Amino acid sequence: MIRKNNNDENAKDMQYETAILQVQEKVDEILSRSPSIVRKYTNHLVSSKGKYIRAKSLIICAEDEQGKVHTNAVKLAVAIEILHLATLVHDDVIDDAKLRRGKLTLQKMYGKKTAVICGDYLLCTALTIAGSISNKQDYISIDLPNYMNKVCLGELKQHINNGNLDLSVYQYLKIISGKTAALFEASFYAGAYILGTDNKNIKKYRQLGYIMGMIFQLTDDCIDFESTEALAMKPVQSDFEQGVITLPLIHAFETVSDLRDKAAHTKITRNEIDDAVKISGGLVFTRMIVQRYYKKALHLIHNLEVPVNKKDKLIAILDKVSRLT
Amino acid sequence: MIRKNNNDENAKDMQYETAILQVQEKVDEILSRSPSIVRKYTNHLVSSKGKYIRAKSLIICAEDEQGKVHTNAVKLAVAIEILHLATLVHDDVIDDAKLRRGKLTLQKMYGKKTAVICGDYLLCTALTIAGSISNKQDYISIDLPNYMNKVCLGELKQHINNGNLDLSVYQYLKIISGKTAALFEASFYAGAYILGTDNKNIKKYRQLGYIMGMIFQLTDDCIDFESTEALAMKPVQSDFEQGVITLPLIHAFETVSDLRDKAAHTKITRNEIDDAVKISGGLVFTRMIVQRYYKKALHLIHNLEVPVNKKDKLIAILDKVSRLT
Repeated sequence: MIRKNNNDENAKDMQYETAILQVQEKVDEILSRSPSIVRKYTNHLVSSKGKYIRAKSLIICAEDEQGKVHTNAVKLAVAIEILHLATLVHDDVIDDAKLRRGKLTLQKMYGKKTAVICGDYLLCTALTIAGSISNKQDYISIDLPNYMNKVCLGELKQHINNGNLDLSVYQYLKIISGKTAALFEASFYAGAYILGTDNKNIKKYRQLGYIMGMIFQLTDDCIDFESTEALAMKPVQSDFEQGVITLPLIHAFETVSDLRDKAAHTKITRNEIDDAVKISGGLVFTRMIVQRYYKKALHLIHNLEVPVNKKDKLIAILDKVSRLT
Repeated sequence: MIRKNNNDENAKDMQYETAILQVQEKVDEILSRSPSIVRKYTNHLVSSKGKYIRAKSLIICAEDEQGKVHTNAVKLAVAIEILHLATLVHDDVIDDAKLRRGKLTLQKMYGKKTAVICGDYLLCTALTIAGSISNKQDYISIDLPNYMNKVCLGELKQHINNGNLDLSVYQYLKIISGKTAALFEASFYAGAYILGTDNKNIKKYRQLGYIMGMIFQLTDDCIDFESTEALAMKPVQSDFEQGVITLPLIHAFETVSDLRDKAAHTKITRNEIDDAVKISGGLVFTRMIVQRYYKKALHLIHNLEVPVNKKDKLIAILDKVSRLT
């Protein structure tokens, strides 16, 4: 199946920079010009902007040989960024988080009830926008609600395994493949679908998106042990305190004798956990897994039959999710 | 625009009873055969079944002259019932409710965090099912996410006005037109759209759905003052305790001198509120508004050019939302 949406009458082809600018403007507009009843809350979110990695990924994937992007890519990129924001708002309710992107969270500022409703509002807004694309069957095929379901199931698995010191590496990778990788995969999928490449290539883009998501999350897990709050713009060294067991710690539990027993039966200090993670090589182990994904991603990118310029952009995204740039 | 989906190759025409049975089976299946991680929670919801008023409305609206219903109507009815269930799960989180349909709420049983994620899961599941209908452009046109947005905004307005003793009749009607009437309107809209009637008629069905929703909510508000918990299968006389100011009380505030001041400055007992609502005629006033809506709904039903049998079914729904049967 080859589709070229670029030729349909609504196509307003644009360059990457224009597309990204339009996404950012549209997201700002949705948040700052929402119905008056919700505006105070959504406005609060404008000030805690993200890096638009998912939107940028989608736009790059949607670039054709001339570096042009279909206007539908902008709409779907906006939808995915708003969807992502919705999950963050609900995440913060679930984690009782104080800070997000350096700002007080919506739930801290206005309470959990408001945050639950605002999250629902954003989720529905995102899906309404996605439904407004000109080639409607594309929207159905990409099936964003289904991807969101994967995110929910990942979140739920994480919540159920809160404080579970016996969580395995495999179980953990399953959790984050839903919680984080699903929305990255959706972004790459949507971009490739709008580009109108064949099914074999679409599969490659989806794989690439999935891997980018895994790298993003695993790198985040390492940062939680390595960074300072000022650098990360959010609470760090907080996963463990919240009972979230991530890969570096799972590795420590599996390699340092008695650590799991100690954590289960006595109050273990944050410093002891940090030391154990470092000494056991938990961070090195996680970075190694990241490295494997990185290599696989590079291989996939190099094998895409796309202009060098597009490959460079995809590599730039890869470096961004790996926090190398 | 006249569309008859009944002729397309996927159409499996069926009678009302078969369609409703299929909806109930499918909803049960979704809840009891969901992914293992979420099954315990969604299974809990199977046991607290609703009356499927929204689904029944949709199926009736979708009935053609021969009383046949297109298979897409079943899918959308399932989607709307699951969507409704999602809003109930989040509502219970927001209201900290203990009982729903005679059973412990999900949030009471498994905690707020699980309930937030399960609500999200159900919401996305509903939209995925809606997206699976055979005539995809119908799904886009009905725009369920947009209706859900109206529900969210209504919920938010209600939450913001929690404890607001100055809430006006107008403001209150605006709140419930989103919170409750929007999903009823969506049900009637979807049914009429699948039937394939013209735009003028679709507008009538939408109006009818909206009115049904208003009647449903206002009757609920009266029951909260009149009924007992055993009869209502949920906590009653609890709206005021939770700061939810409904129409009977708004009327009392507007007519009984000093009541608002007393409620604002001193601790007013539930009995005093009940007496004031009764003496002021708050219940009579609300029932009168319901009566007006009822009359309007009957007028709309009688003016539809549909078989008597279909009219009777719509009147039965009207009586059900009015709790007359």
